[in-house]
Amino acid sequence: MVGKFELLKSSKKHKGRAGILHTAHGSIETPVFMPVGTQATVKGLTPQMVEDTGAQIVLSNTYHLALRPGSDLVEEMGGLHKFMNWSKPILTDSGGYQVFSLSKMRKISDDGVEFRSHIDGSKRMFTPESVIDIQRQLGSDIMMPLDICSPYPCKRNQLEKDWIQTLAWEKRAKAHWEKAPGKQLLFAIVQGGMDNGLRKESAQALIDLDFPGYAVGGVSVGEPLDEMNEITAHTVPLLPEDKPRYLMGVGLPENMQFCIEQGVDMFDCVAPTRLARHGQVFDQEGGRLNIKNAQFQRDQAPIDPSCDCYACQHFTRAYIRHLFIAKEVLAITLMSLHNIRHMVRLVTRIREGILAED
Amino acid sequence: MVGKFELLKSSKKHKGRAGILHTAHGSIETPVFMPVGTQATVKGLTPQMVEDTGAQIVLSNTYHLALRPGSDLVEEMGGLHKFMNWSKPILTDSGGYQVFSLSKMRKISDDGVEFRSHIDGSKRMFTPESVIDIQRQLGSDIMMPLDICSPYPCKRNQLEKDWIQTLAWEKRAKAHWEKAPGKQLLFAIVQGGMDNGLRKESAQALIDLDFPGYAVGGVSVGEPLDEMNEITAHTVPLLPEDKPRYLMGVGLPENMQFCIEQGVDMFDCVAPTRLARHGQVFDQEGGRLNIKNAQFQRDQAPIDPSCDCYACQHFTRAYIRHLFIAKEVLAITLMSLHNIRHMVRLVTRIREGILAED
Repeated sequence: MVGKFELLKSSKKHKGRAGILHTAHGSIETPVFMPVGTQATVKGLTPQMVEDTGAQIVLSNTYHLALRPGSDLVEEMGGLHKFMNWSKPILTDSGGYQVFSLSKMRKISDDGVEFRSHIDGSKRMFTPESVIDIQRQLGSDIMMPLDICSPYPCKRNQLEKDWIQTLAWEKRAKAHWEKAPGKQLLFAIVQGGMDNGLRKESAQALIDLDFPGYAVGGVSVGEPLDEMNEITAHTVPLLPEDKPRYLMGVGLPENMQFCIEQGVDMFDCVAPTRLARHGQVFDQEGGRLNIKNAQFQRDQAPIDPSCDCYACQHFTRAYIRHLFIAKEVLAITLMSLHNIRHMVRLVTRIREGILAED
Repeated sequence: MVGKFELLKSSKKHKGRAGILHTAHGSIETPVFMPVGTQATVKGLTPQMVEDTGAQIVLSNTYHLALRPGSDLVEEMGGLHKFMNWSKPILTDSGGYQVFSLSKMRKISDDGVEFRSHIDGSKRMFTPESVIDIQRQLGSDIMMPLDICSPYPCKRNQLEKDWIQTLAWEKRAKAHWEKAPGKQLLFAIVQGGMDNGLRKESAQALIDLDFPGYAVGGVSVGEPLDEMNEITAHTVPLLPEDKPRYLMGVGLPENMQFCIEQGVDMFDCVAPTRLARHGQVFDQEGGRLNIKNAQFQRDQAPIDPSCDCYACQHFTRAYIRHLFIAKEVLAITLMSLHNIRHMVRLVTRIREGILAED
């Protein structure tokens, strides 16, 4: 059953669908929003709190964990699930994105990518094979292959070079994984930037390789929303119907309806916790409140009166504003918790809408 | 019943006792350790977590809340219990200690103390009456009167001047409180520094005024442990048997046994949460571990294998060390939670020992 994607229903109104993805640590109802736990913790929350938001799977970062505390240590501690006390599924990214966004130096060769750690400047090397080995040590349920996340904007010849290199790496990753596939799934990552033609070539080449799931990478890298929507609408329908489709790094409330209607099954985004650290909370109307605003000083309403999270059930905007201004971390905890619960509820509602169609 | 102190048992081996103090928000089994929630939150913990540590009462700071968010705001929000979502008893201090330790300028007169806010430099005034009014607005179960906390070391004539001024303020505080005592209790604060004679005079004068409880102030202000123990052993037995006795600002694991044996019923201390923020956790043997130490890097044991807290039941030292080094706030949450639970368990064990005596 592990790796099986059950397509429960496809909408007749749009390309959206509802499904179930089976992994070694349980089943995930899709579409699904995955909170991000970069350093083996969803920032500010206990795993119990994360579970209470209804999150079914978390994403953790191979790059960060490889550097600190080290994947050998995590393996020795019984794997990432045990280490962070999270018994549900985990997806780990490949580290590719972080190498390009965080590390000080990077040198790409056919072999892989050499870079310097953003923590201590030490020289490191990721290869398609080593990144699989690291994720084996972490023991995630879904692994991602090393890729080159092209920047935005990016010239066509660079985009072409990047996806071709990525494809070569993905082939090697798959071959390495298939030596002993076990219960960890390996998804493919489609690249090609904002170029429809390259996206099609990348998708087709990866489909020919037959992965258990397909991700669209290279989005949410600074492009305007309409370009992101355009490339999502173009790329997602190219992917196999019977496999889960993951739109990497996307997951604001305003993205969900559109992207799900293009056929996306999985999302991840740091926004719920990052925005919380900046005092921003998702409201009932699909917008955001800045909790610092003076208008909330004596506001006895919860962040969102329609929300069932611990924060909204027990605390007022006035209290959370006080905590935030007084620099109390409980503010961040409560706002993070609400923002994640908001995303989970939003995606669940859309899923239920699809299932309820005639 | 509110205000009643039931003395359940006095030890025959020492001056320690076990009792129950009844307040408007429930009964407190004494001896008791009170976690500190300075700004209407025990730092790093949800009120649910605080309750789960077994804490029966929290302390909050009048000085901090008066400056931010303001006691009028807290009152408008339904009082401190509702504001911070804590339904058990709350003790608020008088703000005296913070005026002397935090504010930039202070001018004592018979009337009260003028000072500048450490937050915005604004000029403020605390009088014995205004401090009661503020605590009325907060709605705490136990209020403390404005006092002068003499520094350590301090000359005898200054100590004498300070306790006499404090006594005059306490008389006014009591008169103001008695106009409408309601369900909030007012404790007295004995001052007199490390001077046995002045402590006796201060205690006697306050006993003559007949307060619902008695606190020993002016300890834990930088004096060596033996001096603190000496003045505690001297002062506490001067206080009425039938009233609760509160040793202000004291509450390290190494203080508990001795102080309880001198007849102390109530303790508060910021140490459990402050030490946690510095990576220090209480261990099984009454010492402390510095979680940063390399020896814990691959240590699969919980902080304290004998502890039943959420942190010790679910996480290893290796994981918490990783979180702390990676500057993840979950580290602080887990260590704070453990440290408070450690104090609660320690005091509960001593209480049970007294109750179990023949």
